[in-house]
Amino acid sequence: MSALAMAIFFRGMSPEELAVLTDAMMRSGAQLDTASVPAPKIDKHSTGGIGDKVSLPLAPLVASCGVAVPMISGRGLGITGGTLDKLESIPGYRTQLSTGEFLDVLQKCGCSIIGQTAELAPADKKLYALRDVTGTVPSIPLISASIMSKKLAEGLDGLVLDVKWGKGAFMKTRKQARELAQTMMEIGRRMGKRMAALITDMNQPLGRTVGNALEIVETVETLQGRGPKDLLKITLELAWHMLRLAGRAADRKAALKLLRQQIRSGAALEKFREMVRLHGGSLDAIDNVSSLSTARLRAEHKAARSGYVAEVDAEVLGKACIVLGAGRRQVTDRIDHAVGLSAIIKVGEKVESGQPLAVLHANDQTRLDEAGAILKDGFAIADEPPAPRRLIAETISED
Amino acid sequence: MSALAMAIFFRGMSPEELAVLTDAMMRSGAQLDTASVPAPKIDKHSTGGIGDKVSLPLAPLVASCGVAVPMISGRGLGITGGTLDKLESIPGYRTQLSTGEFLDVLQKCGCSIIGQTAELAPADKKLYALRDVTGTVPSIPLISASIMSKKLAEGLDGLVLDVKWGKGAFMKTRKQARELAQTMMEIGRRMGKRMAALITDMNQPLGRTVGNALEIVETVETLQGRGPKDLLKITLELAWHMLRLAGRAADRKAALKLLRQQIRSGAALEKFREMVRLHGGSLDAIDNVSSLSTARLRAEHKAARSGYVAEVDAEVLGKACIVLGAGRRQVTDRIDHAVGLSAIIKVGEKVESGQPLAVLHANDQTRLDEAGAILKDGFAIADEPPAPRRLIAETISED
Repeated sequence: MSALAMAIFFRGMSPEELAVLTDAMMRSGAQLDTASVPAPKIDKHSTGGIGDKVSLPLAPLVASCGVAVPMISGRGLGITGGTLDKLESIPGYRTQLSTGEFLDVLQKCGCSIIGQTAELAPADKKLYALRDVTGTVPSIPLISASIMSKKLAEGLDGLVLDVKWGKGAFMKTRKQARELAQTMMEIGRRMGKRMAALITDMNQPLGRTVGNALEIVETVETLQGRGPKDLLKITLELAWHMLRLAGRAADRKAALKLLRQQIRSGAALEKFREMVRLHGGSLDAIDNVSSLSTARLRAEHKAARSGYVAEVDAEVLGKACIVLGAGRRQVTDRIDHAVGLSAIIKVGEKVESGQPLAVLHANDQTRLDEAGAILKDGFAIADEPPAPRRLIAETISED
Repeated sequence: MSALAMAIFFRGMSPEELAVLTDAMMRSGAQLDTASVPAPKIDKHSTGGIGDKVSLPLAPLVASCGVAVPMISGRGLGITGGTLDKLESIPGYRTQLSTGEFLDVLQKCGCSIIGQTAELAPADKKLYALRDVTGTVPSIPLISASIMSKKLAEGLDGLVLDVKWGKGAFMKTRKQARELAQTMMEIGRRMGKRMAALITDMNQPLGRTVGNALEIVETVETLQGRGPKDLLKITLELAWHMLRLAGRAADRKAALKLLRQQIRSGAALEKFREMVRLHGGSLDAIDNVSSLSTARLRAEHKAARSGYVAEVDAEVLGKACIVLGAGRRQVTDRIDHAVGLSAIIKVGEKVESGQPLAVLHANDQTRLDEAGAILKDGFAIADEPPAPRRLIAETISED
């Protein structure tokens, strides 16, 4: 398998070969039988980024429209955060459910977010361990087979991909991101799934928070209709494609109207509360989110000059968060759910000298100081406003 | 190591990388300390072919000129014969000597031909096993490191390569053969060894016999001065380069004169007898070679038409010999030393319809019939004489 991984690394795979590999990996373990859930099953996969908490508002929002979202998520590693770590900052939330429990939650509330189980696509974990020691992790076909074998074992009808590009993403260019998206879509299509993909900007963090509990706070705010614009925009756009693949949306305009209505009415937030409750999580934490953000030390990172924010470097902010303790350098590292960054300024915004660019949350003065020093490289301020950027760079869909 | 082999297979190695790999493989086990042998130590390596018994007359011929030849040889696999198998058709000849015994024979008679020992370059055997199952055997850098790590562990001063190209060789084109030769020479040079290489034709078998005992017969005939022209020519040319690398030859003309003299005087044959005797082999078998060729059944393969021999396909003749039992399909196969082909016609010779093109030696009628059927594809006869071929296509040397 090591030799095969290396051969694929250098030579790539034909679409047919890749579909066969993915299928074999998917069949290496159990496949989720979702027949007991009558609604169409659509999931979303993001290739990960800094402040990417989209799954958290998205799953309940889509579920509130009658589409089932059986979502198996990952943990954070390196600068990229993980949905499971964020959910575990809600006291009591269980990310490890049995298959029976998972299906039960899915039937009751239409969405469930859990961690990878040993039963689904176990070949992926073994192959990943070999790729890790042979330098074959950064291979688009191997990444695609890894993601798709796990996702397709969930018993889905369709899958929407959020493939991120930029400083805070695994894919550093839009071209690479597009290639990864197209490769995964081709696998999905060959395996009879409806597919769509967005290529989105991950040069600056998504939303205004990076951290675990801090991102839960922002999730709840988003479901309350007062979240940051960029997070809401990506969430709505992914949700529309999920409804479309489920056959539950006539057109984009009607879908967006419905989705906004589900937020305004509180239906989406109520769905999130229901999912948290069914996972054993504390509703007090959701209903009073300020209780989640409990780091002992806070400090403002201030602008050294006035001007327009030209750059907020997602990678640098991600590194600062690791120093604060919000992320892992190694899989075995423990994380501190309370720490991170909030009130992060966005590219294009105007600032005065001395105005805060972000707020640091820490539980250790040394780490706070170190993260503050790192952040000095995280922001660029210019005299002129920067050229506008496209948050959603491309949409790839079949119809 | 599997992943590394695959990476090398697809990407090759820089000369420096390859020298480092070869050095590491060489140092994975013991290295022969030949300091007790005062003569310069020069070996020859052939990449193998059909009827390639050159080592057998060459080692004693060169040793008779005062150059030590510490030769570690291999067994046959597939259509290619092995020097050890040929030697073992001499009753009593021991190919597995201890290091002490090997040095003792080398001191006493100046040449010794033994089998690979577990002590020298053990990494090669392990890496080869991985290459075998990962499809990375046909890689010029990996082949070169394998050969050179074993050869350089012999404690040599210099090495002459006989890199064969054509139907009966591992390298099917002259270009590939040249690349392999140059790659091995570069490794040797970087490790401080004097190197030379011949690129030689292996489209038709070398000499007029293919088999084990049959090739010993031809070896003795060659050392008696009545061997086939092509075998003698390659042997003399390789011997001259070995003398040259040892600093024992002023020029080619003088060297060839000396070498022919060593054959004419019987000195080379006497050296062969001495080596066989020191290895425990029967001198009766050498002095009365007809006793070696004892297959029960013989049959002539006859020309279907008159004309000039345009092609004698080494690969086809090699396959016929495997069917007769002279070679191995798998490493575990036992071989029959008596069987094979003799009196093989050479390209360019004129034949009449019904004249024998080769004599088959077999111990089983079914195998004899099957080999005879295979041989039908082994010869081409044309009206016109074929264009002359160059037996020694190229010589690569440093000076």
